[in-house]
Amino acid sequence: PPTWGRGSLRLPSLPLAPCRAFSNNKILVELDESSGVATMKFKSPPVNSLSLDFLTEFCISLEKLENDRACRGVIFTSAVPKIFSSGLDITEMCGKSTEHYAEFWRAVQEMWLRLYGSNMVTVAAVNGSSPAGGCLVALSCDYRIMVENPKFSIGLNEAQLGIVAPFWFKDTFVNVVGHRVAERCLQLGSLLPAPEALKVGLVDELVPEEKLQEKAVAVMAQWLALPDHARQLTKSMMRKVVLDRLVAHREEDIQNFISFISKESIQKSLRMYMEMLKKKK
Amino acid sequence: PPTWGRGSLRLPSLPLAPCRAFSNNKILVELDESSGVATMKFKSPPVNSLSLDFLTEFCISLEKLENDRACRGVIFTSAVPKIFSSGLDITEMCGKSTEHYAEFWRAVQEMWLRLYGSNMVTVAAVNGSSPAGGCLVALSCDYRIMVENPKFSIGLNEAQLGIVAPFWFKDTFVNVVGHRVAERCLQLGSLLPAPEALKVGLVDELVPEEKLQEKAVAVMAQWLALPDHARQLTKSMMRKVVLDRLVAHREEDIQNFISFISKESIQKSLRMYMEMLKKKK
Amino acid sequence: PPTWGRGSLRLPSLPLAPCRAFSNNKILVELDESSGVATMKFKSPPVNSLSLDFLTEFCISLEKLENDRACRGVIFTSAVPKIFSSGLDITEMCGKSTEHYAEFWRAVQEMWLRLYGSNMVTVAAVNGSSPAGGCLVALSCDYRIMVENPKFSIGLNEAQLGIVAPFWFKDTFVNVVGHRVAERCLQLGSLLPAPEALKVGLVDELVPEEKLQEKAVAVMAQWLALPDHARQLTKSMMRKVVLDRLVAHREEDIQNFISFISKESIQKSLRMYMEMLKKKK
Repeated sequence: PPTWGRGSLRLPSLPLAPCRAFSNNKILVELDESSGVATMKFKSPPVNSLSLDFLTEFCISLEKLENDRACRGVIFTSAVPKIFSSGLDITEMCGKSTEHYAEFWRAVQEMWLRLYGSNMVTVAAVNGSSPAGGCLVALSCDYRIMVENPKFSIGLNEAQLGIVAPFWFKDTFVNVVGHRVAERCLQLGSLLPAPEALKVGLVDELVPEEKLQEKAVAVMAQWLALPDHARQLTKSMMRKVVLDRLVAHREEDIQNFISFISKESIQKSLRMYMEMLKKKK
Repeated sequence: PPTWGRGSLRLPSLPLAPCRAFSNNKILVELDESSGVATMKFKSPPVNSLSLDFLTEFCISLEKLENDRACRGVIFTSAVPKIFSSGLDITEMCGKSTEHYAEFWRAVQEMWLRLYGSNMVTVAAVNGSSPAGGCLVALSCDYRIMVENPKFSIGLNEAQLGIVAPFWFKDTFVNVVGHRVAERCLQLGSLLPAPEALKVGLVDELVPEEKLQEKAVAVMAQWLALPDHARQLTKSMMRKVVLDRLVAHREEDIQNFISFISKESIQKSLRMYMEMLKKKK
Repeated sequence: PPTWGRGSLRLPSLPLAPCRAFSNNKILVELDESSGVATMKFKSPPVNSLSLDFLTEFCISLEKLENDRACRGVIFTSAVPKIFSSGLDITEMCGKSTEHYAEFWRAVQEMWLRLYGSNMVTVAAVNGSSPAGGCLVALSCDYRIMVENPKFSIGLNEAQLGIVAPFWFKDTFVNVVGHRVAERCLQLGSLLPAPEALKVGLVDELVPEEKLQEKAVAVMAQWLALPDHARQLTKSMMRKVVLDRLVAHREEDIQNFISFISKESIQKSLRMYMEMLKKKK
């Protein structure tokens, strides 16, 4: 069991030089060196979907910040109106090769391992809807603030698409809302409007949209007031069991994803879902 | 760990031909083929106690519905006024042979394994008090609606009788109300009036008695709106750990029950409890 | 898994003769033989810190009561105004020998193993602030009543001192408040004012200071109304997993404590903390 003085999770480094400030294609990263707080702003219209490119950029950006001694915390938010992130990009899961599915799924796992296991303080400033994988990003942070607009909803709604949230999505969810709420919401594929999300503890607080940035900065300051080392070891102690479970079953999880997603019935329901989304536009 | 594309729990079939509609001695089963929803109505006066006969009939009825493609969900309710189910039949545990205790306990286990692991949507429409094993039946469903009458109470009150709820009753309870509420209520053998039960999450909502049936049908419709396969896999992912624990320790659990229930001190306290119940009448 | 008829945790006895009533240096123990309820009153000014002497006396007193058939429950409270217990005595962790650290840590473990695993009903009557180890004492009881004064706070604030709560402090905390609240409060080292502590379930109820004793006695009577044997087995079933985890890793946990506490950086931050406390006076 994790205990006094144990090291926290350390993933192997990506082969990248550290860097102070950088912008990319799909994520805008800004680091305020005076406060030690970075902002990762998702700007991948129309809906910040978690494509392979997005995930790769996410992991590289997070790794850079993790290795940057000037950075102690990250705020995640969206530059796209009304949407935080729509979750996994369905086009990556439809009509592609087995190799592509494997690469994509490994990138999804990597994103979660790095975010849920981050040594930095992570705050989700949820300024729009956040279904499925978008919800996972928020759940993996240390604290979740959401805009109080009831039109914005959040949840692991995989079941509504005919698919099943992976066990580590579930573990992350249970750690936040407890077993009963997780069981009910996962089976129903519930997307909860912001006020409902607050009620079940899926988010920690609601604020008016114009106060979101300010609130995120204030919360971050509160968390950064703690000594890094003790806070990091504590976070690791709380999350290690769940992180280790995926690390131990990573290849098996990829194979399960591939065999599930390759089924004709699943491909068909994903195609239907995409058609529906196109019509909505 | 359970994950994408894993099958859900499948118990060995009972040797019974499937059948559309059937009535029995202690449970009335009605299947509405248009909606795919069955109702299992307990009609074993005076208190719907879970006798060996009742449990056998329960398992057979549930198995029939599980194997019936026309059935996707089951509502459990009582045909006896003021009582949902009084729980395990104490006469089955008093002054009987070791073989009888073993047979009875195996039937209790079987009931729970089939109900908690059911692939169908299960809704408890709790229209009366529901102590001990009656509470377990409700806890094992996907959703619990209770009549808002504060005279009706529900809980795992085994400790009040001088006995201990089995570990899998406890696991099921913890999965619904969390560790703290479970610890407190199990130690105190708490029977909670409906409003208290709602407060701690032991039931999901309260309705006036005359609205119970209508509400159960509405909730069922909401759950049946989800694709069966994804919902079933999700349910299995949430419940598998706890189901597997009993499957792995089933014979040991039977032996433990027998040696516990055979103690003279326990036999004595059960006899006293039965005397008290008789006087109450 | 624990189940029907399994024995509860039995620690090896301390080599002490049982005794009816006794007073000591740092803890006043009174046993009311008519009710079977003892009170352990902490009287180690200025702040009831858990020194090696205090812990040794605590374990001896608890063991005596545990072995005394006239005693069925214990109420823990403070004889020092405004403070329940300030937690582990930092002077025991600063500038001492490795042997001393080992002896001290073993005593901390022993206190928790005996209290969390006690067969008696344990009620914390929290009549003052209760940080860190003081909070652990309260968390390890069956029920927590706190004085409703918002100036009194409670919590596992180790992170604020630059140290990490041991895994079994964390396990005990999670069992009371759930994973999410524990994760947040442990990372922030939160000390919650009494009303906040009630809100997250860290304590079970608040009362005016003058009603505390009366309430503790009433709660104790409610718990003692249950048959001891069933209640004890139920308690053991709920707590065994977490108790066993420390028993299995006890020596490792001591070594971890020693190597952590021996670090110069930790020694320095503890010295600074003690300086700050002295200035406060």
